[in-house]
Amino acid sequence: MFGWHAGVVSRVTARTRVQRYRSGAFTERADLVAGEEPLEIRLSGEPLSVTMRTAGNDIELVHGFLHAEGIIEEAADVTVMRYCDGVDENGRNTYNVLDVQLAGPLPERISAASRAFVTSSSCGVCGKASIDALRLRTRHSLPVDLSFEAPVVCAAPEGLRGGQKAFGVTGGIHGAALLSPAGSLRYLREDIGRHNAVDKVIGAALLAGELPLSGDALVTSSRASFELVQKALMAGIGMLIAVSAPSSLAVELAVDTGLTLVGFARGEGFNVYAGGERIVREHLRPVGG
Amino acid sequence: MFGWHAGVVSRVTARTRVQRYRSGAFTERADLVAGEEPLEIRLSGEPLSVTMRTAGNDIELVHGFLHAEGIIEEAADVTVMRYCDGVDENGRNTYNVLDVQLAGPLPERISAASRAFVTSSSCGVCGKASIDALRLRTRHSLPVDLSFEAPVVCAAPEGLRGGQKAFGVTGGIHGAALLSPAGSLRYLREDIGRHNAVDKVIGAALLAGELPLSGDALVTSSRASFELVQKALMAGIGMLIAVSAPSSLAVELAVDTGLTLVGFARGEGFNVYAGGERIVREHLRPVGG
Repeated sequence: MFGWHAGVVSRVTARTRVQRYRSGAFTERADLVAGEEPLEIRLSGEPLSVTMRTAGNDIELVHGFLHAEGIIEEAADVTVMRYCDGVDENGRNTYNVLDVQLAGPLPERISAASRAFVTSSSCGVCGKASIDALRLRTRHSLPVDLSFEAPVVCAAPEGLRGGQKAFGVTGGIHGAALLSPAGSLRYLREDIGRHNAVDKVIGAALLAGELPLSGDALVTSSRASFELVQKALMAGIGMLIAVSAPSSLAVELAVDTGLTLVGFARGEGFNVYAGGERIVREHLRPVGG
Repeated sequence: MFGWHAGVVSRVTARTRVQRYRSGAFTERADLVAGEEPLEIRLSGEPLSVTMRTAGNDIELVHGFLHAEGIIEEAADVTVMRYCDGVDENGRNTYNVLDVQLAGPLPERISAASRAFVTSSSCGVCGKASIDALRLRTRHSLPVDLSFEAPVVCAAPEGLRGGQKAFGVTGGIHGAALLSPAGSLRYLREDIGRHNAVDKVIGAALLAGELPLSGDALVTSSRASFELVQKALMAGIGMLIAVSAPSSLAVELAVDTGLTLVGFARGEGFNVYAGGERIVREHLRPVGG
């Protein structure tokens, strides 16, 4: 059985008043800002995590989050996911607490999800240890025959932004999506948190039974951090395309695992930090199998 | 007694190779990316939190973090803070674990730090509950006589970016600083995480015995989220200036507490989402007391 409340009102954006200062003068008008609310994730009633997120696609978000943490592997690992019945001071359901019932035994799964560098009793936590810990948790090997034409990579950020409804009206919300080698985007999702946007994308694909995502790249409007590379690896995604800069540990993890890491992807070009073999060098030539 | 290891090597940036694609052609060259490494924070040997941060100013970071969480109020609340002696696989100290000894009793402080919306057994977690929970934890009232000329606000982001050494070479690291009404920036700090950059700034001020920061604004290169408004409030800062967009909950919290919230601060102007009375309307006129 699988069920959750329908009819959640959209809280993707919120209305506010703004005083604009331009050319030495103030004007006042109505404005829209990106929605941000806490989402509490519970496992069988026990609080697991709270994330500040943009409401909407919460079920996907929680599936993606649980998958990235190694707590679930596929949709069947969740038997029930439902909003708790709590209400705010006006008597309205807040839709900000999701309770998850897992198919498997709880303690075992939580233990599997614990990251070595958090629970380790040794004192030497370092980037390398984080990478090693992650390596043990990843089930999927990365695709060897995935390849993208360079112009497809260049065009991806513009396509992503064009599909971001909330970005257009707020100017401040992250987007993520899956990109096919033919250049089409799917599962485009938005969130105030870049990690949440990616969790929603991967959660949606997981619910559709599409993992591992060996035929797609993951595109994000944000920087490429260690955490985003990690989420891509957990889903078997071979290529991460970020609009902004990568971090040192993101590069290190990508090099170490063979993931293709692209940063500063813009209309005019991009930078490849790891796994350059998945990008076709002579573009406009058909990609060989 | 107060001590920590000196001589931490700079890991603010890391060298890497990059393949650049521009105008249909690839070139390869050396590049710098922003450093990202895990920092584990322990209280009397017990793991409290792990944050992915840019190494450097770790002591300030941890003070700022503990302050924002309500665990400490001033420098004297920490008796010892030191890096653990753990080493990586090459026998080098990782400087990625900081152990903190507090002056006060541990359980009481941790309990005070627990956020109501995490530990609450009710099911109605919502933005309002988060705001109420925070209200109880803030000790400082906001300054009533703080005021900024609009041109000072406009110039702040450029000043911040100009002072960001690591941004200049990596293009991907956040900055934060305190801004005086006269337009000077101090405690300028950088980090791959925007919340970490702010923790470093406030931690530095806390170590200098300067809290509450009633005479300054806080400038950040990032978006303004609920969490950043929260950190400003905990430090008694009356004004937050963000280069990018605010979130709905950041606006709500600012309106509710009277904090001045500025977003989209650029050279040509800015937007005021709350507390507009701290910005002088007829600029170039002396500010009255």
